[in-house]
Amino acid sequence: MNQTKIQELRQWMSEQQSDLAYISDPGHIAYFSGYSSDPHERVLALFVPLNKDPFLFTPALEVEDAQNSGWAFDVVGYLDSEDPWKKIAHEITTRYGNPQKISLEKNALTVDRFEKLREYFSADFSTDVTPVIQRLQLIKTKNEINTLLEAGNWADVAFEIGFGAVKEGAKEQEIVAEIEYQLKRRGVSSMSFDTLVLTGDNAASPHGNPGSTAVQAHDLVLFDLGVIWKGYCSDATRTVAFKEPTAFQKEIYQLVLDAQLAATAAVKPGITAGELDAVARKVIEDAGYGEYFNHRLGHGIGTTVHEYPSLVEGNDLVIEEGMCFSLEPGIYIPNKVGVRIEDCVYVTKDGCQPFTTTSKELTIIE
Amino acid sequence: MNQTKIQELRQWMSEQQSDLAYISDPGHIAYFSGYSSDPHERVLALFVPLNKDPFLFTPALEVEDAQNSGWAFDVVGYLDSEDPWKKIAHEITTRYGNPQKISLEKNALTVDRFEKLREYFSADFSTDVTPVIQRLQLIKTKNEINTLLEAGNWADVAFEIGFGAVKEGAKEQEIVAEIEYQLKRRGVSSMSFDTLVLTGDNAASPHGNPGSTAVQAHDLVLFDLGVIWKGYCSDATRTVAFKEPTAFQKEIYQLVLDAQLAATAAVKPGITAGELDAVARKVIEDAGYGEYFNHRLGHGIGTTVHEYPSLVEGNDLVIEEGMCFSLEPGIYIPNKVGVRIEDCVYVTKDGCQPFTTTSKELTIIE
Repeated sequence: MNQTKIQELRQWMSEQQSDLAYISDPGHIAYFSGYSSDPHERVLALFVPLNKDPFLFTPALEVEDAQNSGWAFDVVGYLDSEDPWKKIAHEITTRYGNPQKISLEKNALTVDRFEKLREYFSADFSTDVTPVIQRLQLIKTKNEINTLLEAGNWADVAFEIGFGAVKEGAKEQEIVAEIEYQLKRRGVSSMSFDTLVLTGDNAASPHGNPGSTAVQAHDLVLFDLGVIWKGYCSDATRTVAFKEPTAFQKEIYQLVLDAQLAATAAVKPGITAGELDAVARKVIEDAGYGEYFNHRLGHGIGTTVHEYPSLVEGNDLVIEEGMCFSLEPGIYIPNKVGVRIEDCVYVTKDGCQPFTTTSKELTIIE
Repeated sequence: MNQTKIQELRQWMSEQQSDLAYISDPGHIAYFSGYSSDPHERVLALFVPLNKDPFLFTPALEVEDAQNSGWAFDVVGYLDSEDPWKKIAHEITTRYGNPQKISLEKNALTVDRFEKLREYFSADFSTDVTPVIQRLQLIKTKNEINTLLEAGNWADVAFEIGFGAVKEGAKEQEIVAEIEYQLKRRGVSSMSFDTLVLTGDNAASPHGNPGSTAVQAHDLVLFDLGVIWKGYCSDATRTVAFKEPTAFQKEIYQLVLDAQLAATAAVKPGITAGELDAVARKVIEDAGYGEYFNHRLGHGIGTTVHEYPSLVEGNDLVIEEGMCFSLEPGIYIPNKVGVRIEDCVYVTKDGCQPFTTTSKELTIIE
């Protein structure tokens, strides 16, 4: 349980004159309460009132786990045969009276659930709690950074395993299986997203799916992977060559690396998120490949694999010490070549440090 | 692409006098369009008008994949630096004019996205497209059932691998790793949810997390797992004993098995979902363990692992031929014992057939 962050949330609620905050994103519920769960279509909710004790609302079959998670306040469960909204309304009214201003997590709450809530409460629902959670999560503590470093270290281990599995005829899926198997055996329970291993033309699709394509000589092989470790995510990408690459592959690789290094060198407090995107993009545009870098430079990372800040054109958010985000330029030329290089970094007083340290020089696997 | 289902959706839209349906759930987008993707926080949408051609709206970096997926209509992409809602509004207006009644998927669309849409359209947003999609997906075709049988067969393979990995001192996570590794090597790219292997007291939590608990003699070991195969999911649970179980473990196991078999025998067109839940529950309640069966009997299965129908007390939905759902009673007595037995089945003319055929008699691993 993170009482400091709950207190900061309440500070914001007080400024907004909000009586009650309804947290619905499972990752954010875990962030505040310490209880981590995927409720699927069932209802999982955290209700934080301004002045009284908060409570967790969970499916009945999770009550015991939630109580054992370190959460110090009440856990209210509901059975599949009960109407969760009727029960939520009853709990809120009994505990907190009739809240006048309920803040919602508008990017996590679905329209049908919002409509259910409105049946029971004629409160002011205009304030969105999403931006304040994004701000709370934006600056990481020293402890959070240490955990992110540990998660990053597992990504480095994953690269080592994956590079070791690259050989003539190895299928993308087999390499994925090898990485995840070795990590799970060593105690990593979850990847932070489906591990990507893409070879040859497949790597030219920035979000392709690993399949039965086999590694062939002179292919580039792209690895994009990360783990969840103690609740924090890693995310990193390396592109390696199997056997001697062509001059063109080398040229594209060097360009992406130059862009990635330029962005890394530019990170420091005071620059904006949009300016960082522009630094990397300029390198690639100047070489004439701008149209093939068709995504933003990066995204924040923490308890979720994609959070604030977004390193995208037009984002004027000023970078501060303690922010953590990815720097991941790429060039994808359909049916020709795909290269992405990514580290997540944390911002220091005057620069940044990466969470992953696997070499970014072009690795050639023989 | 499933043109029959798109046509059935349009039939419903016509009855509702709805101009435009906005499909936002990635699984449902895949169901209609054939394009499967997890867009994370980016916007992925399918717009189906009553009379003109539909279009897919995707992040720019997915446009090529979407075009190559078999989708026969337009794919419109947006860059991270663009406002997707402005672009969506422009596309809708250009293609379809000014729709008066837009149907939303209210259990998939978030409040913030709904508010964005309302900035551009002053349409009637009252109709929810969710129930019609649930109805469309409820009755599976012969082809869908054949694919679900293939997915079920992989779950049987997974049990065989998993049972083979049970031995003194084997950790839950190691067994999970072994199952997923072997499946991935054989060409299964995704599990339909995080594989559960729970041993001893851990199995007494219906949604526990596999960890470093090691299998010990006289433990019950619970396996709950499934794969995604050609877009369709499997989901099955077996509980096995490692070395001779106690009389109490055997008693609880037999009770859960009796409940599962009673429910299986009761499935036929004409019975209601709620009645099926009651059949299994009565067996466990009559033996005095009703409070420890703290979840519904089952859930539908298809392109997602949890869909309609919900087999829960009070659900008057009448079971029909072609419906597919799980039958999964369980008894969880904290710190004592946990048993769940689950098959997913499809409803035939006069009964049901399971997708998984691993024996349900208590398997004792020596």
